[in-house]
Amino acid sequence: MKLDILGCYAATPRSLTNPTSQVLTMQNQMFLIDCGEGTQVQLRKNKIKFGKIEHIFISHLHGDHFYGLIGLISTFMLLNREKELHVYGPKGIKEVILLQLKLSNAWTPYPLYFHELTSTEPEIVYENNKLSVETIPLKHRVYTNGFLFREKQGDRKLLVEEAKKYNIDVTLFKSLKKGKDVVSEEGELIKNELVTEPGDAPKSYAFCSDTVFSENIIPQLSNIDVLYHESTFLEEQLKLTEPTKHSTAKQAATIAKKANVKQLILGHYSTRYPDIELFEKEAEEVFPNVSLAEDGKSFEF
Amino acid sequence: MKLDILGCYAATPRSLTNPTSQVLTMQNQMFLIDCGEGTQVQLRKNKIKFGKIEHIFISHLHGDHFYGLIGLISTFMLLNREKELHVYGPKGIKEVILLQLKLSNAWTPYPLYFHELTSTEPEIVYENNKLSVETIPLKHRVYTNGFLFREKQGDRKLLVEEAKKYNIDVTLFKSLKKGKDVVSEEGELIKNELVTEPGDAPKSYAFCSDTVFSENIIPQLSNIDVLYHESTFLEEQLKLTEPTKHSTAKQAATIAKKANVKQLILGHYSTRYPDIELFEKEAEEVFPNVSLAEDGKSFEF
Repeated sequence: MKLDILGCYAATPRSLTNPTSQVLTMQNQMFLIDCGEGTQVQLRKNKIKFGKIEHIFISHLHGDHFYGLIGLISTFMLLNREKELHVYGPKGIKEVILLQLKLSNAWTPYPLYFHELTSTEPEIVYENNKLSVETIPLKHRVYTNGFLFREKQGDRKLLVEEAKKYNIDVTLFKSLKKGKDVVSEEGELIKNELVTEPGDAPKSYAFCSDTVFSENIIPQLSNIDVLYHESTFLEEQLKLTEPTKHSTAKQAATIAKKANVKQLILGHYSTRYPDIELFEKEAEEVFPNVSLAEDGKSFEF
Repeated sequence: MKLDILGCYAATPRSLTNPTSQVLTMQNQMFLIDCGEGTQVQLRKNKIKFGKIEHIFISHLHGDHFYGLIGLISTFMLLNREKELHVYGPKGIKEVILLQLKLSNAWTPYPLYFHELTSTEPEIVYENNKLSVETIPLKHRVYTNGFLFREKQGDRKLLVEEAKKYNIDVTLFKSLKKGKDVVSEEGELIKNELVTEPGDAPKSYAFCSDTVFSENIIPQLSNIDVLYHESTFLEEQLKLTEPTKHSTAKQAATIAKKANVKQLILGHYSTRYPDIELFEKEAEEVFPNVSLAEDGKSFEF
């Protein structure tokens, strides 16, 4: 599992800071999460093979989270993309993208599907045999969802030397990986656990931005591996969190602690702060394993 | 008169090239012409006091000419702009901007006026006592206008020493600058030409992008000072100009020559060409005074 931060600052793109966008690579699939203005340039700068992206998740329709989407969709057009593209986001996203395509008298040569979200309860919006993506309803000034990416339990790992000892035919190895007992060449029943071990523990990643502090999301985030939680402010600007519906670093850490996640990544910093180390410091007083998102930074989990 | 090139490449923004946008400063007013994705960052990088911009002219609704507009309008919002902003562009521009503001549950704290253009004949779309802006109907794949900025003839220049010799009261200096004859302290009629000289010749700038080669625009461009004309291609890709409705460098130079303009600036280069010097070379075979637009470059006239 890999996370590439393309942009992690609030509000408006500036010379050295980019609005929210990140690429999660999970089970060899690339997922784009949010798409602020300039995302396509950030994808290029970070040398991400963005033609591979087939699913784009948009948390909400504030500009710093989606103004780059129409540009990316248009660029896919110019690059003669043929593969399907799926966009998941709040109701209205389809109208605004299609209006812009219509005004430029253009249409995508590739199938473009919109999955408009309206539910205020968590729902699985994408799933295959390796992973699932569910919404995390957030509390912000407009309808907003976070997204929770969960790997599914993969195959068991075959202990090849053990399997050979029990004289199991190679054609049965696939069954073993699937957890089934098999019969050896000698006709003996071989219990699966004798020749396999559990596969890698499935990983999970939650993106929560933008949101005011809300304990409602804690049960859904329980025990996940990595939580990206917005921290627009430090505690000294706590009074701004309620009108703007944003969180502080301490609040993000409180969510991480109460949900017992393994790792917290902070982002969506207000550009008023010259030194983002202060966010890390504040969060670490509540929760130990904190990292700072930074534009262009990659995390491997 | 000053021209700041923010972006001058065709199609899609990349790590080192930006889509079309430029700032013309004329008579102390700043005009933004086109606004591709990332324009607000380019404004910051080029240290342009963009709060001063009150008029934005959009040539057409292809993404590389206007996808940055909504972001700039939003940023003016965040910067608590109070001054009026006027946007001139093809019909549809109002709908797409207002839809995006509506979806983000936002409205501008400053008056935002749209002047939607539909005429296929040149028309004056903005005028004050110092300058005028008229459309230049262009031929492209969608409804497109170039823009012609013309200074008006300014005041005559007072020859102060001469005026003193003729014993003219200072309260009459303003009348002299306006070209009027005055009466000296001795009651003598003083002809204006004796104590003034003509003011600076009014300057003119035309922006023509995007367009296929069309001689229709020549009369309107006749004898202007500076013409920015698109040159998406070189002559070796001439066959691409008709289906895409773009021009070559040679064609741009032909327009400049036939219109007898003083200076030609080329831009809107296809990113297929690694060396833009080739555009200058090709154009110079037809017209001598050619400059290349480059992102971040400023021209003073």
